[in-house]
Amino acid sequence: MSAYDDLMAFQRETEALGQVAGRLGWDQETMMPEGAAPQRAEEHAAMANVLHARRIDPRIGDWLDTAKASTDVAKANLRHIRRSYERTAKVPAELAAEIAKTTSLAHRIWAKARGDEDVAAYLPILSKVVALRQEEADALAQGGDRYDALLDDYEPGATGTEIAAMFSALRPRLVALRAAVLDKPKPQGLSGTFDEAPQLALSTKLALAFGYDLDKGRIDKAVHPFSSGSGIDVRITTRTNPADPFNCFYSTIHEVGHAAYEQNIDEAYLLTPLGNGVSMGVHESQSRIYENQIGRSRAFTGWLYGQMRDAFGDFGIANEDAFYACVNSVNDGFIRTEADEMQYNLHVLMRFDLERALVSGDLAVGDLEAAWNDRFQADFGYAVDKPSNGILQDVHWSEGLMGYFPTYTLGNVYAGCLNEAMTAAVPDLQSDLARGDTSAATSWLRENVQTHGGLYEPKEVITRAIGKAPSEAPLLDYLEAKFSDIYKL
Amino acid sequence: MSAYDDLMAFQRETEALGQVAGRLGWDQETMMPEGAAPQRAEEHAAMANVLHARRIDPRIGDWLDTAKASTDVAKANLRHIRRSYERTAKVPAELAAEIAKTTSLAHRIWAKARGDEDVAAYLPILSKVVALRQEEADALAQGGDRYDALLDDYEPGATGTEIAAMFSALRPRLVALRAAVLDKPKPQGLSGTFDEAPQLALSTKLALAFGYDLDKGRIDKAVHPFSSGSGIDVRITTRTNPADPFNCFYSTIHEVGHAAYEQNIDEAYLLTPLGNGVSMGVHESQSRIYENQIGRSRAFTGWLYGQMRDAFGDFGIANEDAFYACVNSVNDGFIRTEADEMQYNLHVLMRFDLERALVSGDLAVGDLEAAWNDRFQADFGYAVDKPSNGILQDVHWSEGLMGYFPTYTLGNVYAGCLNEAMTAAVPDLQSDLARGDTSAATSWLRENVQTHGGLYEPKEVITRAIGKAPSEAPLLDYLEAKFSDIYKL
Repeated sequence: MSAYDDLMAFQRETEALGQVAGRLGWDQETMMPEGAAPQRAEEHAAMANVLHARRIDPRIGDWLDTAKASTDVAKANLRHIRRSYERTAKVPAELAAEIAKTTSLAHRIWAKARGDEDVAAYLPILSKVVALRQEEADALAQGGDRYDALLDDYEPGATGTEIAAMFSALRPRLVALRAAVLDKPKPQGLSGTFDEAPQLALSTKLALAFGYDLDKGRIDKAVHPFSSGSGIDVRITTRTNPADPFNCFYSTIHEVGHAAYEQNIDEAYLLTPLGNGVSMGVHESQSRIYENQIGRSRAFTGWLYGQMRDAFGDFGIANEDAFYACVNSVNDGFIRTEADEMQYNLHVLMRFDLERALVSGDLAVGDLEAAWNDRFQADFGYAVDKPSNGILQDVHWSEGLMGYFPTYTLGNVYAGCLNEAMTAAVPDLQSDLARGDTSAATSWLRENVQTHGGLYEPKEVITRAIGKAPSEAPLLDYLEAKFSDIYKL
Repeated sequence: MSAYDDLMAFQRETEALGQVAGRLGWDQETMMPEGAAPQRAEEHAAMANVLHARRIDPRIGDWLDTAKASTDVAKANLRHIRRSYERTAKVPAELAAEIAKTTSLAHRIWAKARGDEDVAAYLPILSKVVALRQEEADALAQGGDRYDALLDDYEPGATGTEIAAMFSALRPRLVALRAAVLDKPKPQGLSGTFDEAPQLALSTKLALAFGYDLDKGRIDKAVHPFSSGSGIDVRITTRTNPADPFNCFYSTIHEVGHAAYEQNIDEAYLLTPLGNGVSMGVHESQSRIYENQIGRSRAFTGWLYGQMRDAFGDFGIANEDAFYACVNSVNDGFIRTEADEMQYNLHVLMRFDLERALVSGDLAVGDLEAAWNDRFQADFGYAVDKPSNGILQDVHWSEGLMGYFPTYTLGNVYAGCLNEAMTAAVPDLQSDLARGDTSAATSWLRENVQTHGGLYEPKEVITRAIGKAPSEAPLLDYLEAKFSDIYKL
């Protein structure tokens, strides 16, 4: 065997073990008996140790020194393995251990502080997390930009400067659109209660309508919806709320977007570095275009209206147009995860600016709450009422995930670009969607994005799919057109 | 840290990884999407490689050389680790790999041959499996007895000679009892069909009645019932048959016996070598005493009769005595796994004699089918009608599990011994059971058997629990008394 073959065989086993560790997480959220938590913590730690030992195995360095890649696929495989290996090598083991220990503690302190509305209890450990991530960023950046070094874990190749430029173009138009929409009368809401069994039945029907393959996946309930796994075992979860079936349906469609990306990667890449979605941003572009540009379109909601009438009878919405407005209702609210597709980005933009300033050192942790509240007031027009609706609402920073937030809106930007190209390429798209048929849309996404897995760099995937460099313009145009139509602006 | 502490820390992580690998098996039988099988095979192989590498890690040998044990628990831990390490070291890696490869292939060939009723297609690969296991047994035995070396994997400390003496005492009395019972009129059978939902509801009620802890476990459906996991995450499965609810109920009680053993081990032994049931025979003693001596007793079936009447209404059995006879019905049949608690042992006895002769070389694989059929005719009084009802019915030999079969009847023998001691120690046992209250019985088993986990050698566990050396006599006395009563012999 060649060095390349040896390396790939080793890597394949690592990928398989990574899938096992991931499925352990799935089990914990869906199946694990409550009393098993202490044992499970040790099982997770043992798997993490096995995976860490493999990732720093010095044989990888030796193989990389001599492996020869003659195809694009082989080159991409080596690129992924090299990036991961060099990333691990740059961070001292003691620092990595300290970060793991501190973020684990910080997560628990954050959860309690959020329950207690006690910012002061949280800031000391957050300061420590920020300092450790700064130290890690310095080790990774080797003189380059700190924030970019962290961002690279979630969106390889992206830079804070580039994202800041994009987000600066988004912000004023989104703030103006939001203000204009909220000045108009509210659409009618749903009335009645919605039983769990028909919610779950329609949720499954929606998953299948979006091409989710139950032969390579399954749907269970969990407190927080998620997608888990790669290749031919990609599972999703959903949840139900008797007053709000949209929560179930659009969670399902969102997770199907993530899961379909994993299921539709070229099967030749199974259990190789190319066999996973290439970045958080591209992943989110798939979940968002499934959920929003397709799932919340006038055409598709027209079909969904009929499905919901069949399942639930009269729920107080008179016709498809009123239903479309109801699905796309824009309301005041403090919580990012509950926001509509327009305001969601404003929540992300402020977190990006704040965390970038934290990481650079321009913003002290002690000034974070005031900065958060000022920015929220500026963009949303009303004041944060309590910390759990403000600085304490998200889990990310306690877990050290600085650099993660911008990928949400980057995903929306990419979804906007892909939607523009897909609409041009699929002529009968709207009439298909009006029949609940997403196959032309999802096939276009599969062939132009999903199938490639990790073959190209994230931005290159989008550039190839749309035939030009991605920009925020299509997303803005789409949002302005959609909400102007619904709200008669 | 001392060598002992280092060794135990390493072992603890290995135990945790073993639990992860086990849960992967559980997932495969209960939750895994069908299309995921190829990826799952690689995940299993990767976990097996990780576990194998840890089991042969030369540091274990170094630690064992210097570790000092000052307590009984520490001594038992070292005994388990040393046995496993030395066992692995004795078998050349190439031979172990060849056995794994050959049994995997043999399993597939056996499954096809059974479907095709084609013994000739199976015997060549079985010959290879037998030859490889003989070679392994020679490596393990180092001049000692081949069969004992294989038996040691399932029942440490047991010998073929000792078991043969026990089984020779069982056989004539079981053959005679069987013949006498089958000479009598058959008890009335169940009539009607039994819906799945109430079967599963009563199955769960039975599991709880036998002390199964759902906070540390869960119950799912699977094609073949099993128990999986140790410590605080021990899961069972069951199945339903609309014509035969006893299949569901007694499968559940049987698996609860296995699971309760694992759940009730002293929690101080969690994720240590003592934190698992000590042998297949002792494990089977728990599942069998739960299922048969308790679950199929006159007293407990009286309670179950009322439960079934509540759940299903009239099912054609007039009273508790008729129900007791129905539960304990003895019928002709070829299949071991479908046999009643008496005939089951005759199935095991013949397999033990046959596999022992195979391993010693006294019986050639080419003569196996004739030997099987002759023995079946001799003990059961009628001829095997087709290979799937004879030599091809069991999976064990294709998987190389020679030495496993006798532990089933050893478990029944131990259950007989434990039942005798438990009955003497628990004064109100029958009146408790008549109310569906197994707590005194299961508490006695927990305190005298289950809590010890791997602290003592298997036979010592039973000897300590019953206050004397185990023998087949209590099982025989129990079976003769029970079936004489039911069948008016």
